[in-house]
Amino acid sequence: MIGRRAGSPLGIIYMPIQQITIVGTGLIGGSLALALRQAGFRGTIVGCDQRTVLDIAQARGVIDRAETDLQRAIAGSDVIVLATPVGSILTLLETVAAQAPPETLITDTGSTKQQIVDRARRLWGSQAAARVLPSHPMAGKEVGGIENADPELFREAVWLVTPIDPGQTTDSRELAAGNTPRQQEYLDLLRSIGARPVVMDAQRHDRLCAWISHLPQMIATALACSLHEQFGDEAQLLQIGGRALREMTRIALSPYSMWRDIALTNTENIEDALLCFEQQLAQLRENLRSPQLREMFENASRFRAKS
Amino acid sequence: MIGRRAGSPLGIIYMPIQQITIVGTGLIGGSLALALRQAGFRGTIVGCDQRTVLDIAQARGVIDRAETDLQRAIAGSDVIVLATPVGSILTLLETVAAQAPPETLITDTGSTKQQIVDRARRLWGSQAAARVLPSHPMAGKEVGGIENADPELFREAVWLVTPIDPGQTTDSRELAAGNTPRQQEYLDLLRSIGARPVVMDAQRHDRLCAWISHLPQMIATALACSLHEQFGDEAQLLQIGGRALREMTRIALSPYSMWRDIALTNTENIEDALLCFEQQLAQLRENLRSPQLREMFENASRFRAKS
Repeated sequence: MIGRRAGSPLGIIYMPIQQITIVGTGLIGGSLALALRQAGFRGTIVGCDQRTVLDIAQARGVIDRAETDLQRAIAGSDVIVLATPVGSILTLLETVAAQAPPETLITDTGSTKQQIVDRARRLWGSQAAARVLPSHPMAGKEVGGIENADPELFREAVWLVTPIDPGQTTDSRELAAGNTPRQQEYLDLLRSIGARPVVMDAQRHDRLCAWISHLPQMIATALACSLHEQFGDEAQLLQIGGRALREMTRIALSPYSMWRDIALTNTENIEDALLCFEQQLAQLRENLRSPQLREMFENASRFRAKS
Repeated sequence: MIGRRAGSPLGIIYMPIQQITIVGTGLIGGSLALALRQAGFRGTIVGCDQRTVLDIAQARGVIDRAETDLQRAIAGSDVIVLATPVGSILTLLETVAAQAPPETLITDTGSTKQQIVDRARRLWGSQAAARVLPSHPMAGKEVGGIENADPELFREAVWLVTPIDPGQTTDSRELAAGNTPRQQEYLDLLRSIGARPVVMDAQRHDRLCAWISHLPQMIATALACSLHEQFGDEAQLLQIGGRALREMTRIALSPYSMWRDIALTNTENIEDALLCFEQQLAQLRENLRSPQLREMFENASRFRAKS
């Protein structure tokens, strides 16, 4: 798996990946490091974050080297993984563009992709597709932080990959080949930790995620807010409500810092999804006494049974 | 626990419960029968349902006797549990009122309570509180039917009890005493299967359940409907979406037959809850780019962390 050598669009001879820098060693970055280690990756993993986070990461054996300085953190790395909220990724791309050598693969784990793809195109121009591979693991927890990092987090999870130039791979579910041998090797590393890379263009990604990830989050948040307004401090309510209510509000604990950036970088798609959903709710409300309700339950059941 | 004998408001000497008729031996009725048996109830359990359902119930050893005829099913029973959707319960109450002797306790497991309380008051007048004990176990599954009955379904579940005349017990969390020795004995049986009886007046019950049970159901249904409209047959979507989406649409499989009756008998409360929630969603949508979003995430997180 590791050890391919081949040419590339940039005319570079790639050596096998020997050092990976993970910028942002929180839940996602920390879990990626733990997973790579568990899967047998023998190279060096450099973590870049605030000192307090890095101290925990080192104490847990998550990373080999800790750097608070980005330039020192990325020096000598074959892969740079930006694993921060999207807003920071956009800023970090600017710095990385100025400092990373051409053979270094730049990738990320950001929750929205169009703005990242656009930024990479602007920064790297015609070299962007060879140097940057935006991606987004469909995994997470309602609680972030290195304390919750888990080497099994990505097992069986889809890892969406949105190439800068999706070209002919757009319609294929599995990305057969990255744009460079290094991209291929990185995708193989992702497979080695149990993830399933799936290719999608960034625009489709952002619309899809608005529906299957961002809308559910907004629903959980709005539901918990409504219950907070209605029942305030009667904290025993969820216990009476049972499993369904617990499930529907579990992710209401998700950190605002991450969701602020998602809301800012995928606003129109989330607005569209919310508006459609609000209309669906209103229709249901207007049909509580009508046989139309049956059709809605049947459609819902049909969708759920298939998926 | 079993074996108390004492007087009652009706001047009746109650013998210990020796026969229970469960009308509707589906998921809830069947689980109750299995749970009673597992907890050591030694009396006779009579099941009343359609023949096909009763055949399965008998094959599984859920009931001792099967009757498709209501009158034969309730003859000689000390307790009658109506475990059908609410609409049927309202109809069954009429028949039971005409046939059940005064010492028989009539109870139910219906999802809404105000209409049941009202119906019992109309049918039994001043004797209603002694003869009828409406109740609602806060437990279930997204799939109904005797096939899914489970003796552990009510373990640790709150079993809401809405006495016809809540009187002084309204504010107490635990129902210390039923209105008659038989009601006390039945509540003890519920405790023996692991349920936690909690008293509440019917009006409060219906408003609370609109928020913690009916609203989540309508959200799951509307979300699955929206996804059905948007993505149709792309059934792999939920897999990409991961745990949160799966959780939020799990109960979209719930049977319409049950929810039709809930929607019809708790319409105003559900309308109110849906409308509040729709307004909350609209507010969130309008604030995707504003710092107000932080406050909503914080309120949501605060509610969830407490509950």
